[in-house]
Parts: sequence; structure tokens; C-alpha cells
Amino acid sequence: MAHRDSNAPTIEDIRAAARRIEPYVHRTPVLTCGRIDDVADAEIHLKCENLQKVGAFKARGATNAVFSLGDEVAASGVVTHSSGNHAQALAWAAKRRGIPAHIVMPTNAPVVKRNAVLEYGGIVHDCEPTLEQRLATCERVAAETGGSIVPPYDDDRIIAGQGTIALELLGQVPDLDAIVVPVGGGGMIAGIAICVKAIAPGIKVIGAEPELVDDAARSRRSGRIESHRGDPTSTIADGLRTTLGERTFPVIRDLVDDIVTVPETRIRKALRLVMERAKLVIEPSAAVGIAALDDDGFRRHGFQRVGVVLCGGNLDLDALPSLL
Amino acid sequence: MAHRDSNAPTIEDIRAAARRIEPYVHRTPVLTCGRIDDVADAEIHLKCENLQKVGAFKARGATNAVFSLGDEVAASGVVTHSSGNHAQALAWAAKRRGIPAHIVMPTNAPVVKRNAVLEYGGIVHDCEPTLEQRLATCERVAAETGGSIVPPYDDDRIIAGQGTIALELLGQVPDLDAIVVPVGGGGMIAGIAICVKAIAPGIKVIGAEPELVDDAARSRRSGRIESHRGDPTSTIADGLRTTLGERTFPVIRDLVDDIVTVPETRIRKALRLVMERAKLVIEPSAAVGIAALDDDGFRRHGFQRVGVVLCGGNLDLDALPSLL
Repeated sequence: MAHRDSNAPTIEDIRAAARRIEPYVHRTPVLTCGRIDDVADAEIHLKCENLQKVGAFKARGATNAVFSLGDEVAASGVVTHSSGNHAQALAWAAKRRGIPAHIVMPTNAPVVKRNAVLEYGGIVHDCEPTLEQRLATCERVAAETGGSIVPPYDDDRIIAGQGTIALELLGQVPDLDAIVVPVGGGGMIAGIAICVKAIAPGIKVIGAEPELVDDAARSRRSGRIESHRGDPTSTIADGLRTTLGERTFPVIRDLVDDIVTVPETRIRKALRLVMERAKLVIEPSAAVGIAALDDDGFRRHGFQRVGVVLCGGNLDLDALPSLL
Repeated sequence: MAHRDSNAPTIEDIRAAARRIEPYVHRTPVLTCGRIDDVADAEIHLKCENLQKVGAFKARGATNAVFSLGDEVAASGVVTHSSGNHAQALAWAAKRRGIPAHIVMPTNAPVVKRNAVLEYGGIVHDCEPTLEQRLATCERVAAETGGSIVPPYDDDRIIAGQGTIALELLGQVPDLDAIVVPVGGGGMIAGIAICVKAIAPGIKVIGAEPELVDDAARSRRSGRIESHRGDPTSTIADGLRTTLGERTFPVIRDLVDDIVTVPETRIRKALRLVMERAKLVIEPSAAVGIAALDDDGFRRHGFQRVGVVLCGGNLDLDALPSLL
């Protein structure tokens, strides 16, 4: 498959990221579950990024970005706007390097997410809950502190860091037919696609996203970045509510083989399946990849050995009854 | 430490069990969690029997018992009375061997447990919910079918099977100071103690049980099998509500180094800790081992590297809010 964006990260960037982050992050295990195999009618290998540091794959990209900085630049710290796993991951990675992490969070962010960032040593900067205010506050904090902005996904260091998931998985499970990857901003699937198509191009890379926020599937069809049609908060998969970015979209357009969209009922069913049968705590975004296995379009591929990235495990247990 | 019961299973029985069950059960992973290390102020290694077949260590003993039978005896099947993990494990193991499993269950057993046994191919026999009726029905079914009774814990084949947990763990993590094991009927801790004291006698074997069903701690002190003082259903750790048996007690008396009892509030806290931070689904009985790490008596040992057996993951998700 041709890759038209010659400026995109390469397999060498991913290998460099793997060496850079190896002292800090987990080589996450790959687990199997007989019941999930039965449901999918295939051999399913679960790449457990829910067991990653900070409970999500975001630790990889954040660590790669933080440790890519030169010493002098790094000393001023890093800055991002996020209320999700990237915020925790950046705070955690910055602490590993001993530099400050400035996290811009909307005033309406859940207290539990704010506390998680504080627990990892991040410095929280409040802002009004609009994208404009988040970006403006982020720029202001960066200007005031001299900190380097590390975006959650639309960044080559992040893409390369997330690509290390595939580097590991290909070494852990030989002869996969496909890898299923949940798609939010696209940093994870872009990194995985670059890695897979460089090393084992026969393996299909399949995106999975909620029907209610199907911007990636529509972007891939239309050939340009599409925004959400409806309210992104309508899906329980809160990690996948973002749209693709300028750096992630071209890679996805050129290297991803298919994007499957799944209804909410199936995401809920998959969340229950993984927790009840695989005994793993995952967040709803991770259930989206499992839900895709049950999609007719996906089944038509006839894959026999499939890797699925369980991207995160940061589930609010007290909210679980409303998610099942 | 002297072992006075010369008829108890030996390390050779455990090695034989390991060879016998190896084609069927998982070599479960050992995982770590930084947050649990922080709470325990020690390096904690989680032996994930919640990721075992049928979601609990019981698959080991049941498989060992089922595959210990001669072909002619096995053909008549196996019989037990249980409404818990042993019932599922025996049904599952019997199916692996292609023989019938007769499971005597009280009429008030939860539908979800009944269905789990049926799903694994077990034949359910109803009985009145008294111990007398359970035993009588079990004997009757065994007489009618010619099936072999396989008790849930007070059986040398079961003890040897559960001992394989330690055989694996000692190979996976060198230089442990102690292994913490939840205690119900005592099959698991007896098997583990036999294995540890034969191979690495310097490693302490510590039992953990709910304060509300502290029969094992009292039995160890008094030198004879004690029954429950109160209502065993008062603890959320439903897998630990049984008392020790004739086969398990002498081993525990002679080989177990300490038994720690933990209050319900700490079991609930540990359940939340493991699910929220280690991202593993466990049942309340498995949380008892984690809760023990926070006990003053346990801390006084000063262990630096501790293995904890997460014995099972068969949690009713819909009941979770009442358990946290």
C-alpha cells in the first residue's frame, strides 16, 4: 500500500521510541480468553494496554515525547490540554524525567481525573470549558513557562510512541491476520499502521469506532478530515470522542485497511464480556475493539488470528452500572 | 518445620499433578502494580488465578482429580456438591475428558452459578439447601451413576492440584520472602505449603481469611478443626465461608507460618484497589489476600518481596456496587 505522506514518522522512529521508553513503560502481556474466541469465531489475542503504566497506552507516546526533548528544553517542562488519559500520562512521564507538567483542564472536568493528574505530580491550570479557551490557555501557559506543548495525538513523537504497541505485539504473537485498534484522534492507529505495514504488510490494520462518532470512517471515505455529525458525548466510549488530526489523518488514509463502526449496545455488551470472562478491567473505549469483532463487515474478512488492543483500563467503577 | 502427617500429598504428587494438568490449564501470569507496592510498602507479585480457566484456581485441582482416574472408573463420570467455583471447574474438567459431571446444587443456588455449570456441560441435580441433604444427594447420585466423588478441597488430588500454583510461582519470581494465600477449606494453602516447604522452606506461607470467618486462625491456635462462631454469610468473601477439612487441617497446622484475619471494610477497600489500579477483575475472596498486606501483624514480618494469590475472578458485576 502506498504511503503518500513522506514526512510521517517511520518504522525507524518507532524503533527509536521503543528504545527510549523501554526503561519506563511495561511490555504489556498478551492474554487470551476462550469465551471471546467463541464469540468472535476466531483466535483473539488481547494486547493489554489497560495494564500499561497509568492504565493506558498513552504512557508510551507521552514518555517518548518527554524523553525526546533536549535537556535544556526539557527543564522548562511540558504543557498540554486534556482531561483524559493523556493528561495523566504526561504528568507521569514528566515526573519520571523530573520536569514540571502543566495540564490545562476545563473547570468542568471530573474531580477524579483532576486528582489523578495531581497524584502523578502534574500542575493543573483551569480554563473555561471551550476548545478555544483550552487552546488559548495552553499557549499562554507555554509562553509563560517556556514549556514544550505535547498534544495528545496530533504529534509525530506521540504517533511513534504509540506505534511501539505493534512492535511488541508482532514479537509476541506470530502470524496475525489483523490488528483491531480503537480510533479517537488516531495517534494509536497511525503508529500501529506505520509499524505493521513496514514489518508485516500482509497484516490488516482495522480501526474501530462508535457509530455515534464515526468521523474516522467518514474521513477515510471522503478523503478529508470530517468533524462529528452529532454530540460526541452521546457515546460511552469517552476516549474516542475526538476527531482525526493533520498528522494522523494522512497515515490513516494511506495505511489503514478498514474502519468498522459499532453501535452503543454492542460496546456495552463487549465491556461486560471482557470484564466477566477475560477478568480484565477496561474502559468503554477499549470495548469498542472487541465490539468490532461482532460486526458483519468485519466477519466477512474471515480473519482467523486477530490482535485487539485493549487501549485502557481507567474505568470509574462507581459509574459501571450505568455502562453495562 | 516438621510435618507430622506422613500420609499427606508430597512434592512428587504436586509435580505429577503439574504434568497431568499442563495440557489443559493456563500457566497464569504474574503481574505487578506500582500502587499496590506503595500501599503495601513492599514488592508485590500477583499470581493471577483469576485469569485461570473457569476464572479460578479450582480448575487445577479438578483437572488433576479428573485425569487421575483410570479409564474405566472415569467413564462413569464424577460427582460433587458445590454451588461455587469447584462445581464449574469439575464440569469443565470432565468435559475436557469427555465424561459426565454430576453437580449437586441446593435449590437456592444463584441462577448465574447454575447456568455457569450448565454452560460447561455439567448435569445439575437439585437438593434441599442443607449440608445433610447435599451430602445425601451426592452419595445417592454417586451410587446410581457409579461416578467418583470429587470433594471441593478435602481430597489429596485436589490439594496436589492446587499446589501447582506454587510450583509455577517459584519459577516465575525468584527470592520471594512470603506467599499470601486466602483460606477457605484449605486445599489451596495446603498444596502451596507442601510445595514451598519442600522446595524453598525459607519462604513463609501466610494464610488470609476474613475476621468474620476466622475458623482457620482459631483451628491453628487450638490444634483442632474449629467451626464458625457466627453466620458464615456475614462476609462478602463467599469463597472462604467453608471450614478446614480432615485432609487440609494437619498440613496447615504443620506447615503454614501464620494466618492473618482481615475486617470486611479492608476487604472492600482491597477489592476496589485491585480493580481500579491493577485493572484486574477479582472476586471478594481474592481481595482478602491483598487486604492482609495492610494488617499490622503482617507488616511486622517486614517482608520485602511477597507473592499474593489472586485466587479467582468470578465476580457478579451487577452486585459490584454492593461490594465496594
